[in-house]
Amino acid sequence: MAKRRISKTKERQGGVVGQLAVCLLHEGMIDKAGNEVTTSLTLIDIHDISRSAKTYGLIHAYIAHPSLALHQLAMRLTSHWKEGYGSTYNPDRKSALDNMTALHTLEEIIDDLEKQTGKKPILVATSAKGGGGRTSYNQLKQSLHSDDNVYLLMLGTGWGMGDALLERAELFLEPIYGPGDYNHLSVRSACAIMLDRLMGI
Amino acid sequence: MAKRRISKTKERQGGVVGQLAVCLLHEGMIDKAGNEVTTSLTLIDIHDISRSAKTYGLIHAYIAHPSLALHQLAMRLTSHWKEGYGSTYNPDRKSALDNMTALHTLEEIIDDLEKQTGKKPILVATSAKGGGGRTSYNQLKQSLHSDDNVYLLMLGTGWGMGDALLERAELFLEPIYGPGDYNHLSVRSACAIMLDRLMGI
Repeated sequence: MAKRRISKTKERQGGVVGQLAVCLLHEGMIDKAGNEVTTSLTLIDIHDISRSAKTYGLIHAYIAHPSLALHQLAMRLTSHWKEGYGSTYNPDRKSALDNMTALHTLEEIIDDLEKQTGKKPILVATSAKGGGGRTSYNQLKQSLHSDDNVYLLMLGTGWGMGDALLERAELFLEPIYGPGDYNHLSVRSACAIMLDRLMGI
Repeated sequence: MAKRRISKTKERQGGVVGQLAVCLLHEGMIDKAGNEVTTSLTLIDIHDISRSAKTYGLIHAYIAHPSLALHQLAMRLTSHWKEGYGSTYNPDRKSALDNMTALHTLEEIIDDLEKQTGKKPILVATSAKGGGGRTSYNQLKQSLHSDDNVYLLMLGTGWGMGDALLERAELFLEPIYGPGDYNHLSVRSACAIMLDRLMGI
């Protein structure tokens, strides 16, 4: 991680604001006891993260779950709002979820994003835990406004991402803290804060 | 609303950081058709808002619901994590919910906050809709760092707070926007962003 130093010099081309995408992952997480696990799916995450991603102009939002049944559940939820009754009942929800795709793995997400943008995304890990080699929000924000890379923000579930996932990331964002030591935010809240810090006007 | 001009001069006394509290309201809301309604309770709001409030050092978080059954449900949820099995299973959740109280009405919240702090809180309305006479996040942040008032951030549900509630507020915060026009955030996400903007370090 933190293998890449982010550019502060290259000017944004073509007026595109923020080549940022986000993904919520469930495989390769850590549980309370420190074991590597696949976490369950929380449906409200799909709604909240897609709404935040749409608000902050992200190029796409993803959710990955390796379980066939839980992936199908995610698909059923999103299709209700994209094409089913929900699409006419609440078009704002449709608009957010049109920008969200449910896939199985991080590899599928990287491939899809590469197909959409023509670029291999730079993986950006996030964690509530502190540590060395972290990128500040200001550094990444500056980079999003000055280079033409595609950045993929990786969000974990459970007790956070395991080492195998963290080691794949090229950048590792600093944790979110308020005035004190407590920073046990929900992933939905943390995502909203991250996007506001990186893409807020 | 916006009757009070916030002070930018008075120095913070006693080193207290941020005399801010938050409440989530369900009575006096607007529905999709523009009618005034009482919205239902969403349990995940209680978790997410209490965790954000604890992270950003708020003096207290509240939820109000006038329905006896839904108030009892909120009490049951919070007591599971404060005193029940949840309190030992996940002490971080206990720590957040210890700072959250479920009451019936906004009046009860104001009374409780006044008992806790010895001061009548200044009500601060929030909305995703634009309009005149709004206070910016920077203005309120400056005030939180320079006067010794207690501010109570009012969060709405459904399609937002009705006029009767909005007119009780002395300040009205500007809406949260990203780079575009879409700003249909969940109340959980909006709360997290508000607290980060007001209390973030």
